[in-house]
Amino acid sequence: MKKDRVTIKDIAKALNVSVTTVSRALNGGERISESTRKKVEELAKKWKYRPNQLAKNLQQNSTKTVGVVIPEYNHNFFSMMLHGIEDRARELNYQLIIKSSGRSYEQEKENCFNLSDLKVDGLLIALSQDREDYSYLNDIYDEGIPIILLDRICEDIDTSVVITDDFDGAFKAVDYLIKNGHQHIVHLKGEEGISTTFNRYMGYVEALKDSQLPFHSDMVISTEVQNDWEKALRKMLNDEHRPTALFAVTDYIAFQAMEICKQEGLEIPKDISIIGYADEPVSIYTSPKLTTVKQPSYDMGKKAIEILFNTSDDLKSEHIVLETELMVRDSTATT
Amino acid sequence: MKKDRVTIKDIAKALNVSVTTVSRALNGGERISESTRKKVEELAKKWKYRPNQLAKNLQQNSTKTVGVVIPEYNHNFFSMMLHGIEDRARELNYQLIIKSSGRSYEQEKENCFNLSDLKVDGLLIALSQDREDYSYLNDIYDEGIPIILLDRICEDIDTSVVITDDFDGAFKAVDYLIKNGHQHIVHLKGEEGISTTFNRYMGYVEALKDSQLPFHSDMVISTEVQNDWEKALRKMLNDEHRPTALFAVTDYIAFQAMEICKQEGLEIPKDISIIGYADEPVSIYTSPKLTTVKQPSYDMGKKAIEILFNTSDDLKSEHIVLETELMVRDSTATT
Repeated sequence: MKKDRVTIKDIAKALNVSVTTVSRALNGGERISESTRKKVEELAKKWKYRPNQLAKNLQQNSTKTVGVVIPEYNHNFFSMMLHGIEDRARELNYQLIIKSSGRSYEQEKENCFNLSDLKVDGLLIALSQDREDYSYLNDIYDEGIPIILLDRICEDIDTSVVITDDFDGAFKAVDYLIKNGHQHIVHLKGEEGISTTFNRYMGYVEALKDSQLPFHSDMVISTEVQNDWEKALRKMLNDEHRPTALFAVTDYIAFQAMEICKQEGLEIPKDISIIGYADEPVSIYTSPKLTTVKQPSYDMGKKAIEILFNTSDDLKSEHIVLETELMVRDSTATT
Repeated sequence: MKKDRVTIKDIAKALNVSVTTVSRALNGGERISESTRKKVEELAKKWKYRPNQLAKNLQQNSTKTVGVVIPEYNHNFFSMMLHGIEDRARELNYQLIIKSSGRSYEQEKENCFNLSDLKVDGLLIALSQDREDYSYLNDIYDEGIPIILLDRICEDIDTSVVITDDFDGAFKAVDYLIKNGHQHIVHLKGEEGISTTFNRYMGYVEALKDSQLPFHSDMVISTEVQNDWEKALRKMLNDEHRPTALFAVTDYIAFQAMEICKQEGLEIPKDISIIGYADEPVSIYTSPKLTTVKQPSYDMGKKAIEILFNTSDDLKSEHIVLETELMVRDSTATT
């Protein structure tokens, strides 16, 4: 039952005119009579003709596509970023080709080259790590494909970035704890080699410094190895001088910390306050509801598309930093 | 600093051979000497030549792309489905063009036509609702674009589907509650007009019937209007003959129901058992951890790609139903 799609050849044949004439009529070209144009348009409409977008784009030397590379789909931060990218791209009539890297450097590199081979008009990348060699991005950039980095900066390439102010977000969270009387605050630190990890850590350190509170490196627990950090936290919670507050690098780490605190017999927020980072939608369903730092991920995506198509002349200049917001809920209290 | 990408013209010029010769050398064509082939290959490698994939696909009358339309990115169910689709598509060297509809029928329709205009080699769609007219999918199908429906069936088009057994998933959940002594079980029902809503509801009804328990329509609360269902549930919880268990159409409805139960002074699972649906990753972070029905969304995505590229001769025959699994956690107990 399959029938072939109507082509301009079919229309040309039916009207006994040339393919060029049909093409001119449908693409608003010159040197064609109004009566012919009308006849072509009417038949094209009747037969539900739709142009072969792919061939059209190729002619125009633009694919009208934007490549997007993210670490993974199943994190609200990236999902919302995708929605922002998509909404703005749709308004500008661009298609997205989205790829995830599964947090693998090799896959990410393959994705980027692959999108470059598809001749996308621009590439938006949320890097999965930044301790690797990203100089290959310069090759893609030099081929004339604009690149915009989202969320994470990398020093191998000098291009536009759209990030949130992680330092400030962390500073605000820890400062809020301090203003509520907490002096012994532990930081559950993220994976090493990622700019967000570093910036949140620095925000924590500077907030303590800013209030003349002492900083000890043993107040920081790295969450890179699951069993190790759980063990380290449990030990700390059972110490005579246990912390009164935790600042976690992500909401998911905060959720796990909440469970551990409960298992160790502590009440949240009576015995211990906890702040997460990201404002995952579930943070209002945990018990108690999680105080966390909200990142404008939807706006980040939107902004990335906007600078991609506005600044093609001076691509290296844009460095957009969006503000975060502290969402105070029920997992924090005064000491 | 931008430099143009190396083309086969550049290579031809440098080696003083024709473009056709270079093309033959790089695409494994005949009628070319081994020494020329070698020279071309060496220079192509040295200059990091990469073929223009878009033009190549167009020649081969395949775009090597698959269009994917989902309601939204920020639901774990769809994210995991995307990962399954992507992993399998990557193995087969297909690109994905993913679009979300934001649960809008008009946007969904536009997305589908748009992907059809891009001449995708296949279309995977997770419909956002099914009370609308989806006969337009037949037009796309008739143009020769295979369509596979994911998660939700719609009667307007006779094509392959990959779904989970929602009836059975709901049946298992309610049957588990019954086997644990619950006789007064309330169903928090989903949005009308969606096949998953209907099948989960029928699973609930049939599980009661199967155990000779009475079914009353006032034991079902529709969650379509937020304020209404909250009010209805609160009223029921304060009734003399209050339910001992709730079966919610989604995890998110279950999370909200947990909050409402707590606010009404009930302990979970001591006073009331709650089961959700979907196994959102956060269901292990709520307190208590949520008992829920796990759907194989990753496998659904993988399967969809597999049937897309295996059954092009007989596309209308595939009707894949994947099994669910009841994840028993801490929100359920015996009466």
